[in-house]
Amino acid sequence: MANDLTDLNMDVAETVAKTMRQIGVAAKSAARELARASTAGKNAALIYTAEAIITQTAIILNANANDLARAKQNGHDQAFIDRLTLTEKSIRAMSDGVREVAALADPVGEMSELKFRPSGIQVGKMRVPLGVIGMIYESRPNVTADAAALCLKSGNACILRGGSEALESNLAIHVCIVAGLRKANLPETAVQLVPTTDRAAVTAMLAMKGVIDVIIPRGGKSLTSKIANEAMVPVIKHLDGVCHVYIDDSADTAMAIAIADNAKTQRYAPCNTMETLLVAKHIAPKVLPQIAKIYAAKNVEMRVCPESRALLASSGIAPLVDASEADWFEEYSAPIVAIKIVSDLDEAINHIAKYGSQHTDAIVTENHSHAMRFLREVDSASVIVNASTRFADGFEYGLGAEIGISTDKLHARGPVGLEGLTSQKWVVFGDGQIRR
Amino acid sequence: MANDLTDLNMDVAETVAKTMRQIGVAAKSAARELARASTAGKNAALIYTAEAIITQTAIILNANANDLARAKQNGHDQAFIDRLTLTEKSIRAMSDGVREVAALADPVGEMSELKFRPSGIQVGKMRVPLGVIGMIYESRPNVTADAAALCLKSGNACILRGGSEALESNLAIHVCIVAGLRKANLPETAVQLVPTTDRAAVTAMLAMKGVIDVIIPRGGKSLTSKIANEAMVPVIKHLDGVCHVYIDDSADTAMAIAIADNAKTQRYAPCNTMETLLVAKHIAPKVLPQIAKIYAAKNVEMRVCPESRALLASSGIAPLVDASEADWFEEYSAPIVAIKIVSDLDEAINHIAKYGSQHTDAIVTENHSHAMRFLREVDSASVIVNASTRFADGFEYGLGAEIGISTDKLHARGPVGLEGLTSQKWVVFGDGQIRR
Repeated sequence: MANDLTDLNMDVAETVAKTMRQIGVAAKSAARELARASTAGKNAALIYTAEAIITQTAIILNANANDLARAKQNGHDQAFIDRLTLTEKSIRAMSDGVREVAALADPVGEMSELKFRPSGIQVGKMRVPLGVIGMIYESRPNVTADAAALCLKSGNACILRGGSEALESNLAIHVCIVAGLRKANLPETAVQLVPTTDRAAVTAMLAMKGVIDVIIPRGGKSLTSKIANEAMVPVIKHLDGVCHVYIDDSADTAMAIAIADNAKTQRYAPCNTMETLLVAKHIAPKVLPQIAKIYAAKNVEMRVCPESRALLASSGIAPLVDASEADWFEEYSAPIVAIKIVSDLDEAINHIAKYGSQHTDAIVTENHSHAMRFLREVDSASVIVNASTRFADGFEYGLGAEIGISTDKLHARGPVGLEGLTSQKWVVFGDGQIRR
Repeated sequence: MANDLTDLNMDVAETVAKTMRQIGVAAKSAARELARASTAGKNAALIYTAEAIITQTAIILNANANDLARAKQNGHDQAFIDRLTLTEKSIRAMSDGVREVAALADPVGEMSELKFRPSGIQVGKMRVPLGVIGMIYESRPNVTADAAALCLKSGNACILRGGSEALESNLAIHVCIVAGLRKANLPETAVQLVPTTDRAAVTAMLAMKGVIDVIIPRGGKSLTSKIANEAMVPVIKHLDGVCHVYIDDSADTAMAIAIADNAKTQRYAPCNTMETLLVAKHIAPKVLPQIAKIYAAKNVEMRVCPESRALLASSGIAPLVDASEADWFEEYSAPIVAIKIVSDLDEAINHIAKYGSQHTDAIVTENHSHAMRFLREVDSASVIVNASTRFADGFEYGLGAEIGISTDKLHARGPVGLEGLTSQKWVVFGDGQIRR
């Protein structure tokens, strides 16, 4: 009574906690139904959802306009507004994305490696859903449809917690998903959207041990690392994308130049964009000045080691910034590149082991032994020979779609698609065997 | 200065923390070497270790005698003493176990699923070690050799923390492992034994984020749950083994009786021993009295539901104990069994979902649809049709050996062998592809 505001806040926290408990109970129960749902039923729900997204376009756009107005009022920058904005075209793409997931093969129930053992039992594995997935994401409303579709197809219930600023857009999309589930006779609580922007909802999700089987954060590093540190349930995540391209002495020079260009400049923001270019010292005079000219023309700031500076300055490349120790750890997500000349493959591998983030690293080489050593020894989720780091995503790898990228070592590494949302249990067929 | 004892304790904790940091640094560096070690090199180290264990038998037995004398002095019970005791025979078995791991196929570097994508890149997976494994186990000294062999073969460095009472035995076995590593020119720090019984060493291990990639506890539930709750690094574990056998109405009666007997009475302590027997109501009069007679003859205490009591009492089976709600959750690890008559498959599946521990559950049935529904819908690490739950282990499944059993859903489920100690990274082969 002495402090009404405190009491009010406590009530909010309690109400949110209660709501989250109800969501959790409903999700667990839906997960059991979904685990045994037929492929046809799950696909029907997805196709109905895709249809509803199209028929509800005007309503989704209207909700999005309200979100956008508030976001502008709250002073968010243009990049934020861009991520939040939906258009008729992006809504159609969202609907198409859901249809594409329907078209993917159902991973659930797949049995493999069934082998007879000397005891007479036949032992193998069956692919099964994880259970309940918690998605925590930021401003892009299309994640609502993408994540729901992937979780549903893989037989998992999901609890979606989108960015506060996208709440109205997310709710409008969620209505389409619920309509799809209902029409396909699947539990509506298979996909639940947290209906509040209160931070307490996230805190509650992170503590839902025994209810949520895995949390997948999608967003900036501060969101992800906060979630990874606080979560009491397993998290599939990546924190950094400090990706390298190493140009080996025996690289094809034209290929090296094209890949170094593409890996850095095709898009600056993605996590699979190269941040540090490593160049073997004997090939450096042949390739580095040409690459640097491309970067200079594209206004990419170059942070260089002393050897690179000497080489590039003598070729008349400017401006150059001296790289500090911190640069080798940096994910710029911007038109900036760190450049280092290394003596050989070993130094490149050691550099990546020390400064890399185990995300995606590439070698450009015509030397087979070097290619195979790089593949084997670089301990990253994706290791690439003679192609751009930009290929490291679910679509390019043929997963059909991705719910995220993992740099963890257990369970799924790299792009996570339907398979990464499942696990394998052991199945045993006998005809009365007992253990002697 | 006011409290010398406190200062002394702080010094111990600091010393242990420093030791553990050094062990961690050495393990990480060894892990990189091991990841690229040849199959021949790893096998040589294992075979040299197996030989050393034999030649050092007298020394190991002497160390074990010292441990045993202390354990008896400290008043440990006979079961504890039995687990701690090594004999010439068990040392030979330990050596043979290490040789068997050498004979298993090397999982590291295996590439699979390499497929060409429309972009021209070829994408697949390569099996790789996890890095550094932390083993925390109790009194059985043979775990030292088993765990070291499995970690080494799978290319992982390991940090072993055995039970305090087994320290001298573990040190003697560790000497053989180090000799094997040295003779094979592999880093001696690939297998490190924590040289202190101080609890601070365990606390330090649980906090070694970025150094230890996964911790595997082997021991009682109190050890495992403590580790799971405190660890800041991922843990592969199982807490409970509340395993069920469900006898379906359409079961073969002779098979049902044999499996219900074997699953409970072949051995009482293992985690894959059945704790609760579920019997469908129409078949119960045909099978349950016969099963109960076997249990009674073997002095297995029966905790029964009211329907089972009525049926069994009328068949003259005694004594019977009324099961309480708590019994359905219980892992007895003793000659006690809980028995419940259920109306049908659905009630059995629901019972297992509510009370089970997702470890191992079996159905006995001749009905194909029931078998397939049980397989699909029971969410346990091992699901078995028409065989005893006792088969759920690494040797019976053909893994060659197991480092533990997991009831977690991410990464490895059920018996964990060499494959569960590895992960898969993505590998991409290109010939100059860039992303458009």
